[in-house]
Amino acid sequence: MKILVVNGPNLNFLGIREKGIYGSQDYNYLLGLLEQKAIACNITIETFQSNSEGELIDRIQKAYFDEVDGIIINPGAFTHYSYAIRDALASITVPKIEVHISNIHQREEFRQTSVTAASCSGQIAGLGLQGYLLAVDAIINMTEENHISSEQSKP
Amino acid sequence: MKILVVNGPNLNFLGIREKGIYGSQDYNYLLGLLEQKAIACNITIETFQSNSEGELIDRIQKAYFDEVDGIIINPGAFTHYSYAIRDALASITVPKIEVHISNIHQREEFRQTSVTAASCSGQIAGLGLQGYLLAVDAIINMTEENHISSEQSKP
Amino acid sequence: MKILVVNGPNLNFLGIREKGIYGSQDYNYLLGLLEQKAIACNITIETFQSNSEGELIDRIQKAYFDEVDGIIINPGAFTHYSYAIRDALASITVPKIEVHISNIHQREEFRQTSVTAASCSGQIAGLGLQGYLLAVDAIINMTEENHISSEQSKP
Amino acid sequence: MKILVVNGPNLNFLGIREKGIYGSQDYNYLLGLLEQKAIACNITIETFQSNSEGELIDRIQKAYFDEVDGIIINPGAFTHYSYAIRDALASITVPKIEVHISNIHQREEFRQTSVTAASCSGQIAGLGLQGYLLAVDAIINMTEENHISSEQSKP
Amino acid sequence: MKILVVNGPNLNFLGIREKGIYGSQDYNYLLGLLEQKAIACNITIETFQSNSEGELIDRIQKAYFDEVDGIIINPGAFTHYSYAIRDALASITVPKIEVHISNIHQREEFRQTSVTAASCSGQIAGLGLQGYLLAVDAIINMTEENHISSEQSKP
Amino acid sequence: MKILVVNGPNLNFLGIREKGIYGSQDYNYLLGLLEQKAIACNITIETFQSNSEGELIDRIQKAYFDEVDGIIINPGAFTHYSYAIRDALASITVPKIEVHISNIHQREEFRQTSVTAASCSGQIAGLGLQGYLLAVDAIINMTEENHISSEQSKP
Amino acid sequence: MKILVVNGPNLNFLGIREKGIYGSQDYNYLLGLLEQKAIACNITIETFQSNSEGELIDRIQKAYFDEVDGIIINPGAFTHYSYAIRDALASITVPKIEVHISNIHQREEFRQTSVTAASCSGQIAGLGLQGYLLAVDAIINMTEENHISSEQSKP
Amino acid sequence: MKILVVNGPNLNFLGIREKGIYGSQDYNYLLGLLEQKAIACNITIETFQSNSEGELIDRIQKAYFDEVDGIIINPGAFTHYSYAIRDALASITVPKIEVHISNIHQREEFRQTSVTAASCSGQIAGLGLQGYLLAVDAIINMTEENHISSEQSKP
Amino acid sequence: MKILVVNGPNLNFLGIREKGIYGSQDYNYLLGLLEQKAIACNITIETFQSNSEGELIDRIQKAYFDEVDGIIINPGAFTHYSYAIRDALASITVPKIEVHISNIHQREEFRQTSVTAASCSGQIAGLGLQGYLLAVDAIINMTEENHISSEQSKP
Amino acid sequence: MKILVVNGPNLNFLGIREKGIYGSQDYNYLLGLLEQKAIACNITIETFQSNSEGELIDRIQKAYFDEVDGIIINPGAFTHYSYAIRDALASITVPKIEVHISNIHQREEFRQTSVTAASCSGQIAGLGLQGYLLAVDAIINMTEENHISSEQSKP
Amino acid sequence: MKILVVNGPNLNFLGIREKGIYGSQDYNYLLGLLEQKAIACNITIETFQSNSEGELIDRIQKAYFDEVDGIIINPGAFTHYSYAIRDALASITVPKIEVHISNIHQREEFRQTSVTAASCSGQIAGLGLQGYLLAVDAIINMTEENHISSEQSKP
Amino acid sequence: MKILVVNGPNLNFLGIREKGIYGSQDYNYLLGLLEQKAIACNITIETFQSNSEGELIDRIQKAYFDEVDGIIINPGAFTHYSYAIRDALASITVPKIEVHISNIHQREEFRQTSVTAASCSGQIAGLGLQGYLLAVDAIINMTEENHISSEQSKP
Repeated sequence: MKILVVNGPNLNFLGIREKGIYGSQDYNYLLGLLEQKAIACNITIETFQSNSEGELIDRIQKAYFDEVDGIIINPGAFTHYSYAIRDALASITVPKIEVHISNIHQREEFRQTSVTAASCSGQIAGLGLQGYLLAVDAIINMTEENHISSEQSKP
Repeated sequence: MKILVVNGPNLNFLGIREKGIYGSQDYNYLLGLLEQKAIACNITIETFQSNSEGELIDRIQKAYFDEVDGIIINPGAFTHYSYAIRDALASITVPKIEVHISNIHQREEFRQTSVTAASCSGQIAGLGLQGYLLAVDAIINMTEENHISSEQSKP
Repeated sequence: MKILVVNGPNLNFLGIREKGIYGSQDYNYLLGLLEQKAIACNITIETFQSNSEGELIDRIQKAYFDEVDGIIINPGAFTHYSYAIRDALASITVPKIEVHISNIHQREEFRQTSVTAASCSGQIAGLGLQGYLLAVDAIINMTEENHISSEQSKP
Repeated sequence: MKILVVNGPNLNFLGIREKGIYGSQDYNYLLGLLEQKAIACNITIETFQSNSEGELIDRIQKAYFDEVDGIIINPGAFTHYSYAIRDALASITVPKIEVHISNIHQREEFRQTSVTAASCSGQIAGLGLQGYLLAVDAIINMTEENHISSEQSKP
Repeated sequence: MKILVVNGPNLNFLGIREKGIYGSQDYNYLLGLLEQKAIACNITIETFQSNSEGELIDRIQKAYFDEVDGIIINPGAFTHYSYAIRDALASITVPKIEVHISNIHQREEFRQTSVTAASCSGQIAGLGLQGYLLAVDAIINMTEENHISSEQSKP
Repeated sequence: MKILVVNGPNLNFLGIREKGIYGSQDYNYLLGLLEQKAIACNITIETFQSNSEGELIDRIQKAYFDEVDGIIINPGAFTHYSYAIRDALASITVPKIEVHISNIHQREEFRQTSVTAASCSGQIAGLGLQGYLLAVDAIINMTEENHISSEQSKP
Repeated sequence: MKILVVNGPNLNFLGIREKGIYGSQDYNYLLGLLEQKAIACNITIETFQSNSEGELIDRIQKAYFDEVDGIIINPGAFTHYSYAIRDALASITVPKIEVHISNIHQREEFRQTSVTAASCSGQIAGLGLQGYLLAVDAIINMTEENHISSEQSKP
Repeated sequence: MKILVVNGPNLNFLGIREKGIYGSQDYNYLLGLLEQKAIACNITIETFQSNSEGELIDRIQKAYFDEVDGIIINPGAFTHYSYAIRDALASITVPKIEVHISNIHQREEFRQTSVTAASCSGQIAGLGLQGYLLAVDAIINMTEENHISSEQSKP
Repeated sequence: MKILVVNGPNLNFLGIREKGIYGSQDYNYLLGLLEQKAIACNITIETFQSNSEGELIDRIQKAYFDEVDGIIINPGAFTHYSYAIRDALASITVPKIEVHISNIHQREEFRQTSVTAASCSGQIAGLGLQGYLLAVDAIINMTEENHISSEQSKP
Repeated sequence: MKILVVNGPNLNFLGIREKGIYGSQDYNYLLGLLEQKAIACNITIETFQSNSEGELIDRIQKAYFDEVDGIIINPGAFTHYSYAIRDALASITVPKIEVHISNIHQREEFRQTSVTAASCSGQIAGLGLQGYLLAVDAIINMTEENHISSEQSKP
Repeated sequence: MKILVVNGPNLNFLGIREKGIYGSQDYNYLLGLLEQKAIACNITIETFQSNSEGELIDRIQKAYFDEVDGIIINPGAFTHYSYAIRDALASITVPKIEVHISNIHQREEFRQTSVTAASCSGQIAGLGLQGYLLAVDAIINMTEENHISSEQSKP
Repeated sequence: MKILVVNGPNLNFLGIREKGIYGSQDYNYLLGLLEQKAIACNITIETFQSNSEGELIDRIQKAYFDEVDGIIINPGAFTHYSYAIRDALASITVPKIEVHISNIHQREEFRQTSVTAASCSGQIAGLGLQGYLLAVDAIINMTEENHISSEQSKP
């Protein structure tokens, strides 16, 4: 089982950028958490971060050919205007979960609209870095359920 | 440890109401899932459902006096206009997570705005009934972290 | 055949409240009209009035279990903001008709939007108390048509 | 007693146009229904259909000189922008009822606004072709009530 | 010198329609006023009224070939949405004055926007039937001024 | 003389809820202030609090039959969306004053709109708990003035 | 008979300011036109110009005590936001005409809204300086009509 | 093969109206181009122009009975508000292409919205008179493709 | 103790202007009420009225140097757009109360927004002239409370 | 003659992405069509695709130095928000045509606005892959016309 | 060389008003800075401050006759609504620079719109009092450049 | 001292792109100006231009590690929608100044909103290329002031 975790612009500045909002743990700490999670769940987690909308779309498209089982994406500020990322996500039919570290509903008005979430299965917001780990759990769960139900429907 | 799960209007009609959106499992199935989770995590989970905004507020206020450790709330349609529930939630400082079964970002425009999420810690949407279980995990985790950090800050 | 007539907030104040708009006949007069109509059409008409959004939803949900053949609802001011009543109505598939005594299109702007009508079969507005009686006729008619067409489709 | 039924643009294409929405009965079927109704109620029903806003206004103005007792109008798409028809209707003080075959509240946003309804007594929407027949009943009823009350106020 | 006076929908109902707003003088009275004015000013005034947007445009286009010296237009309710009349007026470069009998700034919000005035030289509103006469004076004056200035610029 | 003081959702949490905004005095303290005021003014003050929109409407309607001389209402968050409470208040013609403890004009945008104030005589906002006492003074004063002027108009 | 002509901010810069829009005649030229008009019509015309909103209101209020027979006002840019001038005009019941030299409907969007016209009898726009002269004619005419009709209504 | 080309209001004024925008070729020139195209492609092209919304709808409806193979429509200013034409187009299922001579995206804001394009297959804008010819090519192409694919699906 | 009462544009026309809304008592009557109140409360009340935004700001700034104990302001129509008065009020930290004679929530939409109230402690609206007297009571009360609490906090 | 065809984000996923909307032919098929077209028309067609806004701008700028004769651009989702691409296109004065495969007027609201079309000569939408070929024809045609008219204007 | 510096409402309260935003230096300090700058640059700087919109316009108009070489204006709160000042500035063609001490883009939404900047050459915001000095540099620079280029264009 | 000057999309086309707006000097001319300025002020100025949002963010983030003393940024069209650049700028606490060559307040509406300015210290617009030089002066000045004040606060 393979899950891709995609992080958008400025997430590499975790621990540097507005710590009051995003916490003081840095991007490597997040990578460490995901590595531990992968081991614990016995799955593969690939991670990718870019400040470039084009590279993020390229990476999402690559996931189509890689046949990942799920995508976790924190599009950063692109959440609020990147219809191009929305379209890229819509091309791929595996479970996709949008994650936000902070509770976007308590912040500036423009942060309360997600144009990308419509192409995802769901969204987790405001639960800090653990939001990524919950998203991993969710994808594993969704995949297993699909597996079971397709097993059951065999003659 | 005690967590309150509050469900708003029409959630008692799970399995009856728009199954294409909310799935075919009924409300008792959800209660069963939460019971199993409580046993698995060795915590107390109280549940409450009402179609009445006033009763939901009363129950949230009662949670203040009961000293619950966390609230999981699916305000149903009240999500989109009940500033009164928003105010009730704002009175209480424990972790609070808003859960939506369906991905509200893929539905009618009015469902894409939450007036209650601003009084919560975060929101989980579109992950089906497992959204409640992830929310339980999240609250346990947030409580433990707080415990650890307050332990650590002891002399 | 059984039809439920649900009246929302302040409709019990017919004859008291803004007579210039709603007329001088009181709520009992409306109940009397409906009773006569039931006798004339040889059907059962149940009536319910509440100022509480929750009780209205409870009553609509009860109609699901009661297997009524149609619902006539005047949601009063809830027409303009109760997405919860909208959701409750959406759960039930019998003919549902929204009735307004006054012509909402000639009044304040907020009264010109109905969030509940989208979950109904149709809407009758501005025809005074007789709007309820026309709605009864309409439901009887819709039910008969369905009956005929399902009869006809029998082999 | 004389009632005028005015149908706006594309209603002559009933049975051809978007049958999923407007049903498979054609415009002649509607004319037949109204004829039967006229006989049953022992009144005169005149009908008129045009795709031209100007002709519709001309016909409404003619009704003023003809001294009709009521007007039933389905302005078709003109419902949503013809302030000219709204003004024409406002010149005439007999009961006027706007009818829509489909439930405009469940369709595109532009169909949920009526600029003509403000010049009518009321509106019936979503009840199919029977909406016209209910409107006939309503006008007969409104006229009789006026008659009775003016009789009663005689010395 | 030849001036065309074009009246839009429902202006033939002057004296019938909403007298509180438009006064009790009828359309013939207006025609009489214009006739007297033509004699007094020794000019030709042609008048035209139609409830049809298309006929109004046809008449405006005819004025182009007739080489009228000015156009006075009261587009009635078309003022507020007929971009087609706006375009027709824009084709013709003689002085054009939009007239409204009532003060549209004191009425419903939709009446406070004119989409046709942008293709006119100016607008006179709220001065009753005399608005037409003032418009005649204005066009005569504008034409004379142009005449004088083109005379003066001759070598 | 009898005045009804109605408090809406979460006002029972005074002293608990957001003290920085609403102050540290609790709901009983407010009740005490009103009791003292009643004694000082030699009038009867009845108080009612509910988190339920329906119960608030029921209580306002009861005041109609109780023939109270004035109503003071703090609708809490319902101020911003309860057209049903607005309608209930509109049924009753005694002086009605809306009170807000905090200055709603300095807070979130949604708090700056009152849909209920249009059915009241006036509004007092931002003056803390003394707002209620000033409202009592205002109603006494308005009632006396009416009394005097109706006395004076006797022959 | 006495008419007051009030000119708002920057009208003293006629002939200096944006000549392409307002023409090359200066403010004194306008005063001259009005003087000639007064002589021709055998009336008194007082003129006033100020760049100050307060002084304009003071002057309008003075007109109330002076018992002028009509007011012609070009509020300049105050047209678009001075509710205070709107209120001042509303206090006075003589004929009041708003004049604009340029056709405000062809310019920036903010110039297409008049908040002051609602307190006037009517508005003349886009007819250049002659707009003032037409307004004088209109007021004389309106006053005479009133005079005649009040004469006629004498017993 | 038969294609209908429908031109809306003011297109008969090509070469007269705003030449800077629409070019100096007149309406007959356009007719000539279409005639040549018909000969070159060996098809029938019928043309129709009217300033009347009603006549345009009548003509579109006639095309339904004539069984044309495609419709090319330039609704002129009706593009921006004629929901009636939109409805008429929606009744007919052959390829329909909306053509605009000028690039509506570079002009006034109201010209940037098409309410009729939603009922067409596609839209060509800003390519001058050749837009009509490209639309003819497109319809021929779409028809051939359909023909081929229906041939291929034969057994 | 010294309180400044500032009245904005057109308040000097009390008793003249729109009596149906503002009552028939004139501005001197209001001054008399305030004088009596000052004597009754044994305080100094200074009053100021101007139609000029600039003079109102000058007077508010003067109050800063005069060290008044409170400001009562009825900004008249400036309430709805004078950000300059809002800024002036924000400079001064004594209790400030905005007063409106009429209930602005029942009037035109533009009157329902106050841009100045955000710089005040609170607002009293719709209680007629007594609103000023209640504001005086409120300021006295707020000042005493501050005095007591600062006394109490002394060692 | 040289034409550049620029394709924006996700167009490389033709045949993969939402086939119901974009068809089942893949990006190479489009490249093949363009190659054939180039041969048939005896011109050079260069193609470029990128998911990166910056690379698209770089390529458009390169076209300026390459002196291409025309640009065909399908900006994909950037159509709806990339003012940067709009600016890049505005720098270059050759014919530029925006192409959309699907009819954007029948889809989500955000797809109905093009911010880039204002910098193009025109737009072709909804005609599938053949839209690109029609655009090629259009550019050839526009170039020839320019050539002829510049030839003709030679002495 | 002569530059006029105009300061609008409440800028005389620098050092008193909201020091957290505007700093603790007072208005005289600003005057001192400008005096030093004038000496350093060997130019004349005139300063003017008023809380009155009318006086500010008068002063700007006076600058026209004084033939100043540039205007620096901080319109204070008038920035956001004074179309009258905008018009006054538009009359004068020398370089004009709008200055704001605070970064208006970080403050309340209404402060983020400038209606006056459209009549200026440019705007400097958020750079504190030095914004005025930079504006002086800019005007000197712009004037010199003009001088040079007009020198160069001499034969 | 080190200042970074970042230029966004299409600024490399200075002198090519819309010269009427941006002037005829090219990008190298701007680089030359900045080089001279660096020498004159004895500081280091690094420059960077990219058409890619991602590269601009990368460069801003690099500035964090490089410990630059100030950033001058002209985000080009990204000014109006790049919340990602806004977030990148917010991570860095040195003085940051947004520069626009043209006066964005005189241009299309979309250019009048800056989403990036909220993360800067201030903004300079409309002063041509010298805007960059003034921004350099401003940053030097701000840095010196900070230095002085931190020196002064040493014990």
